[in-house]
Amino acid sequence: MSIAGLSPEALARACAETMCNDDSASQRLGMTFDEIAPGRATLSMTITAEMSNGHATAHGGYIFTLADSAFAFACNGYNQRTVAQHAAITYIAPAFVGDRLTARAVEIHRKGRGGIYDVHVTNQNGEPVAEFRGHSRTVKGTHLPETD
Amino acid sequence: MSIAGLSPEALARACAETMCNDDSASQRLGMTFDEIAPGRATLSMTITAEMSNGHATAHGGYIFTLADSAFAFACNGYNQRTVAQHAAITYIAPAFVGDRLTARAVEIHRKGRGGIYDVHVTNQNGEPVAEFRGHSRTVKGTHLPETD
Amino acid sequence: MSIAGLSPEALARACAETMCNDDSASQRLGMTFDEIAPGRATLSMTITAEMSNGHATAHGGYIFTLADSAFAFACNGYNQRTVAQHAAITYIAPAFVGDRLTARAVEIHRKGRGGIYDVHVTNQNGEPVAEFRGHSRTVKGTHLPETD
Amino acid sequence: MSIAGLSPEALARACAETMCNDDSASQRLGMTFDEIAPGRATLSMTITAEMSNGHATAHGGYIFTLADSAFAFACNGYNQRTVAQHAAITYIAPAFVGDRLTARAVEIHRKGRGGIYDVHVTNQNGEPVAEFRGHSRTVKGTHLPETD
Repeated sequence: MSIAGLSPEALARACAETMCNDDSASQRLGMTFDEIAPGRATLSMTITAEMSNGHATAHGGYIFTLADSAFAFACNGYNQRTVAQHAAITYIAPAFVGDRLTARAVEIHRKGRGGIYDVHVTNQNGEPVAEFRGHSRTVKGTHLPETD
Repeated sequence: MSIAGLSPEALARACAETMCNDDSASQRLGMTFDEIAPGRATLSMTITAEMSNGHATAHGGYIFTLADSAFAFACNGYNQRTVAQHAAITYIAPAFVGDRLTARAVEIHRKGRGGIYDVHVTNQNGEPVAEFRGHSRTVKGTHLPETD
Repeated sequence: MSIAGLSPEALARACAETMCNDDSASQRLGMTFDEIAPGRATLSMTITAEMSNGHATAHGGYIFTLADSAFAFACNGYNQRTVAQHAAITYIAPAFVGDRLTARAVEIHRKGRGGIYDVHVTNQNGEPVAEFRGHSRTVKGTHLPETD
Repeated sequence: MSIAGLSPEALARACAETMCNDDSASQRLGMTFDEIAPGRATLSMTITAEMSNGHATAHGGYIFTLADSAFAFACNGYNQRTVAQHAAITYIAPAFVGDRLTARAVEIHRKGRGGIYDVHVTNQNGEPVAEFRGHSRTVKGTHLPETD
């Protein structure tokens, strides 16, 4: 499969599919895609007992992991391999076992090799759970062949 | 069990034990304790295939989760329930399936209800993998009863 | 003067005026207001030779100071004294002597005593110069008397 | 002047002198050097009325600027031009007009083109005022000619 003739939207989705096949971590955690577009990605995940931290609240690491995955899919939709360099998360409210969290990643800036992406994490009631900001950097390589 | 007569070191370990009994997330990931002391915690974890992101590299979320757990144990050793408010991670080098990562959390500052903790994550060769800085805030409640 | 009967917009402007009278730092740097509203503030400042870092580029500290001031005015418009707790800046492009920088602060989240504000700094051509994220915390006290 | 034969310490100081001649911003603010070494820099500055934010407290931007300058001198001591890419500051306690602040920058990590530096800001009583973490990136160019 080559990227010739793909729209930016179709390219972003094709990159996500390729990454997904490799990303056993996100898959094992039960993440699902709500939206993939150039510079954007929305993923959802249900908090399970395995992800809890005692008292049925989610370990912050799993909230981060969901946001980090949305960030990764958002910044990798241009068919250039792109990695996380730095990320920060602010916890706003706890999440609980059974909550369905949604992470919506939006590109704030992209120029040269660097990018900034904000990810809003909300629960099933639309209440904010965390705010995440990720800094990306493109590295060598593509997800799909550039030409046939 | 009461905290009366416990040394600061014993209190920090008792708090960690109490948290640990509740923290199925850290346990399920196979984290082990190398050191617990007031304001300090060192945890180790082996990267498994489940934690990988394709190409046998660790998903950044699991590196964060290890660092976040070390941070949590370091800031909770004073028998005051303390939560993460904000955290930032910088990825220095990738980690791979089979790597044994160690996260060493050190208290940089603690005053009133706020604290700052730095966590250095290294691999089995002592090479740096990530630098993490966490900001904590004490909330109501203790891990162990203050008095009998 | 009392805040009775003021609209949220008028209250935000009245708080800004009160702060401004006290804030010799922002004034000395020649900052001007483009907009003040509840949770929002836009300030502009021209980079002078005094603010330069050699080679006629602005010292990053002055870019931060402009963003930090916009953040302060944005989070203080509710007549509750509010302070910066943590802030992060990413430098996107250098600014030069003579550039007219604009910092536009927008409230991302506010709940209880905490808030998150993003500040976009651009130059006179609308090109991005820096992205700033500030975390605020309300403290005791008001800018204007609550009642007559 | 060439760098041939300079010790790492002498090279770091020579880079600082070259930068200093260009850096009117830091000089105008009255910053003085307490220490310059490879990967380390300690600078001090007295808070003046001009830097105050009303009520005789220092505008956070000036505390940041002092820390940012210490960071810049610490990461530029290897005769490779190095710029700030991202920085975060946590405010611990206010500073007041007349306070003498000291910013001590220490290299946490340096590899390839990237570096991480922590800067501790204290007042004249040794009390912590702020914690700063800066991320640097080397760019093209040297401060001193590599050879005669």
